[in-house]
Amino acid sequence: MTSRAGIRLFVQAPLTAGVSLIMEDQHVHYLRNVLRQSEGDHIELFNGRDGQWRARIAVLDRRGGSFMVERQTLEQTSEDGPWLLVAAVKRARLEMIVEKATELGAARICPVTTVRTNSERLNRDRLVSIATEAAEQCARLTVPEIGAMTPLKNMLMDWPTDRRLYLLDETGAGVAIAQAFTAHPKELGAALLIGPEGGFDQSELDAMRILPFVKALDLGKRILRAETAALAALACYQAIAGN
Amino acid sequence: MTSRAGIRLFVQAPLTAGVSLIMEDQHVHYLRNVLRQSEGDHIELFNGRDGQWRARIAVLDRRGGSFMVERQTLEQTSEDGPWLLVAAVKRARLEMIVEKATELGAARICPVTTVRTNSERLNRDRLVSIATEAAEQCARLTVPEIGAMTPLKNMLMDWPTDRRLYLLDETGAGVAIAQAFTAHPKELGAALLIGPEGGFDQSELDAMRILPFVKALDLGKRILRAETAALAALACYQAIAGN
Repeated sequence: MTSRAGIRLFVQAPLTAGVSLIMEDQHVHYLRNVLRQSEGDHIELFNGRDGQWRARIAVLDRRGGSFMVERQTLEQTSEDGPWLLVAAVKRARLEMIVEKATELGAARICPVTTVRTNSERLNRDRLVSIATEAAEQCARLTVPEIGAMTPLKNMLMDWPTDRRLYLLDETGAGVAIAQAFTAHPKELGAALLIGPEGGFDQSELDAMRILPFVKALDLGKRILRAETAALAALACYQAIAGN
Repeated sequence: MTSRAGIRLFVQAPLTAGVSLIMEDQHVHYLRNVLRQSEGDHIELFNGRDGQWRARIAVLDRRGGSFMVERQTLEQTSEDGPWLLVAAVKRARLEMIVEKATELGAARICPVTTVRTNSERLNRDRLVSIATEAAEQCARLTVPEIGAMTPLKNMLMDWPTDRRLYLLDETGAGVAIAQAFTAHPKELGAALLIGPEGGFDQSELDAMRILPFVKALDLGKRILRAETAALAALACYQAIAGN
């Protein structure tokens, strides 16, 4: 399914015509040794702010490399996708969620702790690099923001007024997902909250259900693993209410 | 998200009240050593035909075990979900597709070969055991059928008249996914076809587009990996047109 994608790299530097950029070390390695590129080859660069730019590999040898930025090939767009709040799950599954949520257009991925979270330490740098690589491969113009691990309680206390929070409610008390997303007001953003493997505590469910910005979703009679629920809800939101 | 599930096991034998079943070897190991169950504990059994039954662990020791089947807790339902046709992808990703597609209610998962398929050998027994375990955990009453690797061409020549085939078309030529599934005729089954990493060959696309049972789907502007496309489409189908 990747036939439309050329080589795309995310960079930190500002992008503008005629500028020369020193390559980051990991790009030197990746372009030389993994992708077997040479001086004179062209690739695409993006930085999340300036759109996508065609760049020529000006220098590439064992000591380093540089790009010559030639011309803009895509204008920046906002990519204002839904947020995903994930109560910590095991590392491999969280990494998979980050990769897939990036492909599915999440704007922000926030690991949260809940009453029943078995909190493993979070390697945020690794999650950022998984998100960056997925953004490069799926033709996004932004990399989703990876939040620091935050107690769910704190996020709820500080919730923005222009964003609805969809709670994936494993007790079956919510609204069917297609119905909920069809009714999503265009002027609001969205966030999806996925509970921990052991489910939310009853006190958390009670507290969330009375918050005006929370809507509980029912994902059907089968019991989904946390990561399946996250990706299913995100895919449905994007198909029905998203971009 | 698994708080509603007790211990459930898929068995081959017929299930009826008062029958005693010899445990399969892997269940003896799993119940004793992984789940630390003992004689007298209760679990649920299903076989894909007779619904779900409460059973007591009558014998469980190092030499083997048996169940006493007590009473039916759920009647069998048809679980007539969509089929998933997957052009072979790398083993780890295919295994992930099988696990998640089971949770999302696929009735049949068929690995297919296409013009651009890099065919790895398929370990079908392993895929069946992944599907079985996922069915046990997600509260299904059936295990999806895992097809043998088949050329896509052969499947198309022999296509059932009562099932629509949705082609995940990475060229962007298809109909938006929410629109297509909203218009899915209730009397037809569905199948979703995911191409290989290199995309379908133009000759395949041309041949499929003129078949009356094929509808091309557009999954949006981002380029999805094969497994992300498969699971996103399946989740959307189930939410919009499915059970």
